[in-house]
Amino acid sequence: MSNVWSSEVSFENGHLHLSGISASTLASDFGTPAFFLDEADFRNRATAWGHALQNSFGENAGTVYYAAKAFICLELARWVAQCGIGLDVCTGGELAVALAAGFPPSKMELHGNNKSVAEIQTAIENGVRTIVIDSLVEIERVAMAAKGHGKRQRVLLRLTPGIEAHTHESIATAHEDVKFGFSIASGAAWDAILAARRHPEIELCGFHSHIGSQILSMDAFGIAADRLIGLLARYRDEFGQELPELDLGGGYGISYLPEDDPLQPDEVLASLYKSVEASCELRALKIPRVSIEPGRAIVGPTMFTLYEVGTTKEVVLEEEGTRNYVSVDGGMSDNIRTSLYGAEYTAVIANRVSTANLIQTRVVGKHCETGDIVIRDIKLPADIAPGDLLAVPATGAYGRSMASNYNHVPRPPVVAVNDGKARVILRRETFTDLLNLDV
Amino acid sequence: MSNVWSSEVSFENGHLHLSGISASTLASDFGTPAFFLDEADFRNRATAWGHALQNSFGENAGTVYYAAKAFICLELARWVAQCGIGLDVCTGGELAVALAAGFPPSKMELHGNNKSVAEIQTAIENGVRTIVIDSLVEIERVAMAAKGHGKRQRVLLRLTPGIEAHTHESIATAHEDVKFGFSIASGAAWDAILAARRHPEIELCGFHSHIGSQILSMDAFGIAADRLIGLLARYRDEFGQELPELDLGGGYGISYLPEDDPLQPDEVLASLYKSVEASCELRALKIPRVSIEPGRAIVGPTMFTLYEVGTTKEVVLEEEGTRNYVSVDGGMSDNIRTSLYGAEYTAVIANRVSTANLIQTRVVGKHCETGDIVIRDIKLPADIAPGDLLAVPATGAYGRSMASNYNHVPRPPVVAVNDGKARVILRRETFTDLLNLDV
Repeated sequence: MSNVWSSEVSFENGHLHLSGISASTLASDFGTPAFFLDEADFRNRATAWGHALQNSFGENAGTVYYAAKAFICLELARWVAQCGIGLDVCTGGELAVALAAGFPPSKMELHGNNKSVAEIQTAIENGVRTIVIDSLVEIERVAMAAKGHGKRQRVLLRLTPGIEAHTHESIATAHEDVKFGFSIASGAAWDAILAARRHPEIELCGFHSHIGSQILSMDAFGIAADRLIGLLARYRDEFGQELPELDLGGGYGISYLPEDDPLQPDEVLASLYKSVEASCELRALKIPRVSIEPGRAIVGPTMFTLYEVGTTKEVVLEEEGTRNYVSVDGGMSDNIRTSLYGAEYTAVIANRVSTANLIQTRVVGKHCETGDIVIRDIKLPADIAPGDLLAVPATGAYGRSMASNYNHVPRPPVVAVNDGKARVILRRETFTDLLNLDV
Repeated sequence: MSNVWSSEVSFENGHLHLSGISASTLASDFGTPAFFLDEADFRNRATAWGHALQNSFGENAGTVYYAAKAFICLELARWVAQCGIGLDVCTGGELAVALAAGFPPSKMELHGNNKSVAEIQTAIENGVRTIVIDSLVEIERVAMAAKGHGKRQRVLLRLTPGIEAHTHESIATAHEDVKFGFSIASGAAWDAILAARRHPEIELCGFHSHIGSQILSMDAFGIAADRLIGLLARYRDEFGQELPELDLGGGYGISYLPEDDPLQPDEVLASLYKSVEASCELRALKIPRVSIEPGRAIVGPTMFTLYEVGTTKEVVLEEEGTRNYVSVDGGMSDNIRTSLYGAEYTAVIANRVSTANLIQTRVVGKHCETGDIVIRDIKLPADIAPGDLLAVPATGAYGRSMASNYNHVPRPPVVAVNDGKARVILRRETFTDLLNLDV
């Protein structure tokens, strides 16, 4: 059993508190639905990943890049910088947020399977440390842009090592049917190496791979690292020099449910080091500098969403029994993961103790859509009622970042709580905001 | 074979034109990605549904309510009003847009499984014609709000008649495992009738049902109407008076693919009339006033999305053969339907003729996510290349309305084209807009 709540969450007489502030107080001060972010927990996780990389890799430690796609805003970008780790951005928009926050470009890398010429230009102009290249045409675009700025641009090539890893299963194949990267097995990776070497404006530093999302075991990471290191050896054999870097991506799983056993930074990095060391030894290669890209693993556990219950309804099921439908004041606009991926969450009544029987419940949103489900199956107290506060943990990653205005529902705020004080870092949208783009 | 393009789309020498303007001109004037909306087609469809209801139901014609959730903005709300039809809104946000556009509340209905007290208050205060009630607690809320405003509020009760209808299949059951409505079979509907009758502030006008989305055959609508009419008869038998209204919802399918055979307004309404007439005759009931709620059927076919191709990549498949991955400059942020529902679309190169072989292709977006797919399987010319324009038809419904800023990608504009002229009605978001909510 692991803890789905961030470190500063406590329960006092059944009331959820974050950094000592009760859910009822948070709801009345900031409204619902809202994301509440445990700032201390975020900083601790970001720092822990940085330290774990240093501890395991020592002089071969590259950079921990926080994956902005999980969630980013100006204030959070500043925290990432203060925690001493890097930032992975994958669009011009994410880059714009990072630059506006004053995040040092020398600690940023740019991702993306279809970077526009403008995005590449902006990255190079601002001195983004590394561009992770994803296609042959991009090699030409990066070379051209670097030349235009009189720079030599550090790049990694994104490779598909033939591993598809998901929460509880990993498949090792030769080919991956995905849009990302150059396949090692098909020869595309080697072609990309040759193409990159043709451009003096491109400094090929090494390879990148990202094998999946919400992965809860380390095996697949080791296989992926070994395949990348195999290509480093071939490069050394062919060109008589060793590429100095590997970026092994992210995908480290967190606890959405109490039974999930998440990967801890120390264990991830110790395991990665062992794999990398063994693979390099086998090929008589120096250990490269290794970077990683946790996103969800840093921000995911640090937020919960607080909803207010609006209605409850007992529905008779065709097979037998009943289901209690609990409608909250948000839904698929602030958390699309349930309907998009079949993601699972847990929840608690946050404002009181209930000793009522636990009954078969579905937590749904307020959108005009049958698939608008927050939690498909959960046991909740039978006496849950309109006005109750419902807290859903582990919504920090891909919650607010994938939020929409479906049904013109304003997006919820993100409220940072630290040291007994709460402050809005991303405000709630208003109906007026929703008309901003009308001409 | 049906036409997936709106009426003012034509192809001249392989170039797509909308109202005489070439896709190349539209792209260079408004950028990509962008939604282009065929205004004449929209007005014709809205008007056609209004006329079809009149033609089939005559004096028993209620209102065609355009379902705002499919897509709404200020300018489009004005067109809906000008076309003489009503508007179905399901949140305070959609209501706010409608009111800001000056849409007459007397032609609006308010939906939603979890309307807030504030939403109900605003609707009643502004004189929204009908509130479609979805739960017992809402009956109390509506009564209280109406009392507070010294009004008597017209309401319908949303019922689940036990029909689940989807594109190609319909299931008739007793119970539906959904968050919406009162079940007729379980007795919940009758309880709601009794509860509504207790409040003098509530004028119970009849019943509502909505049986599904993107439905391509009429059978299920007839069954649903019959079950509602059965309850109208029971009401008459019990209380000695007839409720005057039925709202049979929306869900009428459109052509996403050439092989889809969409429902036409005249055929829908003629079929509905026949069903309603027969069911009423059987129970010796007067034919009620019938309303419907097409959303997708009006706006869906009127827009296409224009993308620019950024990269192409041939991926070797594990089984055998290859797949051409074509990356465009949008993706799941402007069209989540493919990843959310497995929705299917077609596409054409819009800026030139190609005589190249058609090959197995997947159209993907620029998001940092493997599931970021616009079209999972399509045959496109092998010579498709960066810089080509790709047009995806039938994206008017649930495209822009469900759009997100995932990866901080600014949402595309909606450009209305009419009579050879194009104008932005919803502008493109900027990177500056994306920082609006940061505190």
